[in-house]
Amino acid sequence: MPNPNDQIRAVAWVDDALHLLDQRYLPAREEILVISDCKVAADAIRDMVVRGAPAIGITAAYAAVLAARARFAADPGDWRSGFQQDLALLNQARPTAVNLGWAVRRVWEHAQVLEGDPVPALLELARSIHEQDIQANRTMGELGAGFIGAGSGVLTHCNTGSLATGGYGTALGVIRSAWSAGKLSAVFADETRPWLQGARLTAWELVKDGIPVTLLVDGAAAQLMKQGKVQWVIVGSDRIAANGDVANKIGTYSAAVAARHHGVKFMVVAPSSTVDMAVASGEDIPIEARSPDEVLQLGGQPIAAVGAQAWNPAFDVTPAELVDVIVTERGVVEQPDLAKMSAMME
Amino acid sequence: MPNPNDQIRAVAWVDDALHLLDQRYLPAREEILVISDCKVAADAIRDMVVRGAPAIGITAAYAAVLAARARFAADPGDWRSGFQQDLALLNQARPTAVNLGWAVRRVWEHAQVLEGDPVPALLELARSIHEQDIQANRTMGELGAGFIGAGSGVLTHCNTGSLATGGYGTALGVIRSAWSAGKLSAVFADETRPWLQGARLTAWELVKDGIPVTLLVDGAAAQLMKQGKVQWVIVGSDRIAANGDVANKIGTYSAAVAARHHGVKFMVVAPSSTVDMAVASGEDIPIEARSPDEVLQLGGQPIAAVGAQAWNPAFDVTPAELVDVIVTERGVVEQPDLAKMSAMME
Repeated sequence: MPNPNDQIRAVAWVDDALHLLDQRYLPAREEILVISDCKVAADAIRDMVVRGAPAIGITAAYAAVLAARARFAADPGDWRSGFQQDLALLNQARPTAVNLGWAVRRVWEHAQVLEGDPVPALLELARSIHEQDIQANRTMGELGAGFIGAGSGVLTHCNTGSLATGGYGTALGVIRSAWSAGKLSAVFADETRPWLQGARLTAWELVKDGIPVTLLVDGAAAQLMKQGKVQWVIVGSDRIAANGDVANKIGTYSAAVAARHHGVKFMVVAPSSTVDMAVASGEDIPIEARSPDEVLQLGGQPIAAVGAQAWNPAFDVTPAELVDVIVTERGVVEQPDLAKMSAMME
Repeated sequence: MPNPNDQIRAVAWVDDALHLLDQRYLPAREEILVISDCKVAADAIRDMVVRGAPAIGITAAYAAVLAARARFAADPGDWRSGFQQDLALLNQARPTAVNLGWAVRRVWEHAQVLEGDPVPALLELARSIHEQDIQANRTMGELGAGFIGAGSGVLTHCNTGSLATGGYGTALGVIRSAWSAGKLSAVFADETRPWLQGARLTAWELVKDGIPVTLLVDGAAAQLMKQGKVQWVIVGSDRIAANGDVANKIGTYSAAVAARHHGVKFMVVAPSSTVDMAVASGEDIPIEARSPDEVLQLGGQPIAAVGAQAWNPAFDVTPAELVDVIVTERGVVEQPDLAKMSAMME
């Protein structure tokens, strides 16, 4: 049963504008960014006002409505050429999350068949993408929770909850469902450096839901497993390759290696829009390199010695052989490989 | 050849007082705490003004001089009973680093045979402990560097340099020696949450030495290894059990598991005073649990959602089977076990 308290929405369409809960300032303050311009929305995606692969896709769908509105007002006869440029801009905002390209592609295909003012139809599409994501998350929550035995401890990484999706969450949706079913003895969350999505966002969501959460530094996860405190690591994904390799927030691969070493199960939860059958393996997934300053500074203040460099890949790739189960709204795949992934995605 | 620039000293005896470089404020500012009272020194150890197992031992030896001076001035006839209480206080300041107990024990044994004013003899002992530590580090630097092939990339965790020791460093001493010998293609350092010793201290030392250093978040270490960028992980230790199990800064075990998974070699560098033959295995090493606030806050500012809990063990234990080589000033042990450790410590 979904948790009735789950009312957090990272992305919303209100009074003809895109509303984004600015996740850079959470949990210190809850600030809504009201956006009426597609370029501003692209900046918001790149600057991580909104993050999480599904939430980025939904944001892009609403941003396309803003783009279509402006282009149609400026040139009702040939709004599509400018609109296509806007979609290209959105598509480039972040490279790893495939849901972004997936949403942009759906919008573009839909735009081909429209006549007259495209805004109502594109808004309907964006709303439907948003609503379908929430439904997919609730389905995945049930499917994933089915794997978890009573009295289990779980560890998650980054934020995969309402803030990262249309609502409810992917990996965090499974944790919500398993918690509601009374199955969980403890929920642990990696703080998830450098952006601290675990400490800032996952903890914030779980506290709001009344689910007790214990944070740990990312380097402590292996020790947690060694002490037998968790039976499952449950994470989301930004892109899943055709063979089941999983790109996700940096630190995920480290947790997967440690999980296998300790016999802890490893579950990946993501909507089917995250699966990119056009990419054969994780080696072909583009990994975003973000600014060294994200490691060298915190909140604009330097934390590292001046003169030090930093290596700051935003994501890593966990090979399919370290994944015990992939959960999507289309179904689950255990010990993923190309054949099983293809069968599910058909 | 030791690096001529290595002039950093975390602990010094100057004008009849103990001088500690306050490591809580590095790299933002270099502040010296001048200490004339043993209890203040014990607080400084507990509050991590000074940290690193060898540096803690040296600090305790100098603090004992302060204690003896005060106790002898107050009661020249029976200064030892108060002195013993002071040593007990020092001994309890932090539980995991065995060098603390080792130094306190050496001081106490030496104090038994002294007649008259104990200060000159205890100061001589403290200075000798300090000087021997630096010599041991230079020896270990040469021994450890001998294992490293030309063109290697190395990864270290926490700070094990001049700031953590009497000078030069343990694991960082090996890196200094290997760098001076022209063997290293790259030096990587985990930032080392929650105290950021890697970002704040290791980077600061290496920048001062002119050794290029690249920081990464702890969770990125496995990905670094997967990409083949490092051939060795080199760390220090706070206590090594008789069977070769190694207690060290939280996150070390995670790096060791990842190293083994990727065929990266794992080296532990520590003076023989870190080896505790009285402790059979890592399971018997006391692990300090520090305040959750170290994870929930940074620089006194909350970073985590209010209401979240945190699990904050300061150390973890890497089992001997994940260690390729232990380097001490007495020699090296490959694939450590009880027999080899006993032979080296005899």
